Amino acid sequence: MSRLFMFEKPLGMRDTLPELYEKKYRVRTRMAETFKLWGYQFMETPTLEYYETVGAASAIHDAQLFKLLDKEGHTLVLRPEMTTPIARVAASKLLEEDLPIRLAYCANVFRSQQREGGRPAEFEQIGIECMNEDTVVADGEVIALLISSLKKAGLGQFQISVGHAGFAQELFVQILGTNGRATALRKFLYEKNYVGYREHVNALNLSSIDKQRMLKLLQLRGGEEVMDAAADMIEQGKGKQAISELTQLWSVIKDYGVEDHVKFDFSIVSHMSYYSGILYEVYAGNVGFPIGNGGRYHLLEKFGKKASATGFAVRLDMLLEALGSVPYETDTHCIFFSQERRREAFQLAQKLREQGKKTVLQNITGVRNLDAFTKRFIDTTYLIGGRSNE
Amino acid sequence: MSRLFMFEKPLGMRDTLPELYEKKYRVRTRMAETFKLWGYQFMETPTLEYYETVGAASAIHDAQLFKLLDKEGHTLVLRPEMTTPIARVAASKLLEEDLPIRLAYCANVFRSQQREGGRPAEFEQIGIECMNEDTVVADGEVIALLISSLKKAGLGQFQISVGHAGFAQELFVQILGTNGRATALRKFLYEKNYVGYREHVNALNLSSIDKQRMLKLLQLRGGEEVMDAAADMIEQGKGKQAISELTQLWSVIKDYGVEDHVKFDFSIVSHMSYYSGILYEVYAGNVGFPIGNGGRYHLLEKFGKKASATGFAVRLDMLLEALGSVPYETDTHCIFFSQERRREAFQLAQKLREQGKKTVLQNITGVRNLDAFTKRFIDTTYLIGGRSNE
Repeated sequence: MSRLFMFEKPLGMRDTLPELYEKKYRVRTRMAETFKLWGYQFMETPTLEYYETVGAASAIHDAQLFKLLDKEGHTLVLRPEMTTPIARVAASKLLEEDLPIRLAYCANVFRSQQREGGRPAEFEQIGIECMNEDTVVADGEVIALLISSLKKAGLGQFQISVGHAGFAQELFVQILGTNGRATALRKFLYEKNYVGYREHVNALNLSSIDKQRMLKLLQLRGGEEVMDAAADMIEQGKGKQAISELTQLWSVIKDYGVEDHVKFDFSIVSHMSYYSGILYEVYAGNVGFPIGNGGRYHLLEKFGKKASATGFAVRLDMLLEALGSVPYETDTHCIFFSQERRREAFQLAQKLREQGKKTVLQNITGVRNLDAFTKRFIDTTYLIGGRSNE
Repeated sequence: MSRLFMFEKPLGMRDTLPELYEKKYRVRTRMAETFKLWGYQFMETPTLEYYETVGAASAIHDAQLFKLLDKEGHTLVLRPEMTTPIARVAASKLLEEDLPIRLAYCANVFRSQQREGGRPAEFEQIGIECMNEDTVVADGEVIALLISSLKKAGLGQFQISVGHAGFAQELFVQILGTNGRATALRKFLYEKNYVGYREHVNALNLSSIDKQRMLKLLQLRGGEEVMDAAADMIEQGKGKQAISELTQLWSVIKDYGVEDHVKFDFSIVSHMSYYSGILYEVYAGNVGFPIGNGGRYHLLEKFGKKASATGFAVRLDMLLEALGSVPYETDTHCIFFSQERRREAFQLAQKLREQGKKTVLQNITGVRNLDAFTKRFIDTTYLIGGRSNE
């Protein structure tokens, strides 16, 4: 292989060097410890799944799936998200007693990218799923846990924008009559293309009152006060149901005392077709994309279980971006030794490590450029030759 | 999809349910914390690599690689081990200053399996690489760290069997003349097929003295005392060099005070073609396979760096098997609440969680079978209706 090519990685694939790894590790650990304290149990599923099961049930676009063939000719996929594999496991093994279950995961997921310089094709998601618990209180619990874990991760400024899959959907169907015509509008909203949405609405053959209702959807953002405006916009059925659920949710969130981090946004929709109720996105600082999202979904039914669930996923790479750069400082000691005092050096290192101090032991003859090497440590000890050199 | 098929996973793929996950998590954390205390820094590489770079440089058999094509027609592989990707990163980015570097990893690797009921096709390896440090002291450090981390993981009975890639190789070449004829014998040793090895040696057209030397190789196992017997068997060159390195290693290991866990075994060889010096395998309890292995290797040269390295990898699944089953006991509390006392319940949960107690908050109307649900917790608190129910 050529010298230039041998260091190459596939499109969208990244190395994580020690400094970034350590930051990720700390953030991941703080999130995970919070999930555990709330009684969520971590589990793991395989990287490879059958296309026919998890690949097909997942809402990720087919062109984004990494596919391969196994030896028997079945198509496999690299998991594109974790909710579907966990639904598979829960439906087959964990929901037999028909009880609520609280699960967590932290895993890399894979989404094929079309060009370089773009998004990563492999990234880590940490998240939870509260399954078989249909009350709005569970949606509130999950949002409160999301807020608590982000705070523990060190995030100060962030907002959960909460909407409901049923509201915009019902509004569109009431006005447009068919689901097909609603799909185009949902796509504008999902892509946050509000200009496109407005143009599309204005071009529709509708009464000016209906156009106004559809444009007003974009203004339904804010605190408790937007609920009344939303209620005025929708007549009956699923839209009212959405408002009732969001009202209950607000009350739960207030009981948790975390309402400062929550805003309503009725224009939030999902590309995940299995989201059916309350859904939300996390925005933080100067990151242009949601760093996480979640909601209530009915995916378990695809695996034969009549149960709903609610959960969220946070992208660790984006959370790190939101946390901003923290200068890296080494916290490692180094003991240089020569053969004569090797055993003494080993004993000193053991003592320091028992005190929780990171300690490198370095044979002095194993380093060619000592000056450069010592720069990596907060301090250095020399156990070389006679005792006077110390 | 059919109800039966929808729960299926690809050949060799496994789910890790919460109980096992937690055990793995604890063991992984203890190993990782030990690596960090010894100054090893964790890093991560992508799951997918180019076949032409990492796939080709890796010593894993081609038939065991999971392969797929990217959109440009390049062949990608799911990483079959971690040493090669880390060598790629180190050679391109981390060894520029020509200093020793100490790296660690914990990652799933992938090896395609031929039939069900066999080995996992995805498994987790935790390991370290000490690079660009050519002295035998570094080999000793790595073995001492291996021992220390296994102890921290809770493993009591285990043994590191240490050999040298150069010894058997030199013996075979001295007796058989060509490397090609040595390869067949090495394969028997790698597969621990000692019966096959004996039969093969006896069938060779050799003097009885040479046959005896080759059979005696299998007896070169034990403590310091086998070194003399080994020295008697080999005449000059690389074989003597191997003995000299192992003698130095023993002295380093004694300085670390961990010689109780180390035995020599001159019949150890590797299927990894890049192993060039001291190498070893970890045996524990009743596990039939090595739970880990390591050694000195020259893989960095495939990525254009003239430097050697030494490192090991431990298979977490096998380490867990060696640790044996520990009964699982829940450590989670549960607070049931009704709407009236919801806020009070949330506050109590917060208090318990701040004390580090895992606490589930459960809306009483969200559970259909309360009796079954309560069995999951060490204790339950009911904040329902009037205060007298408490």
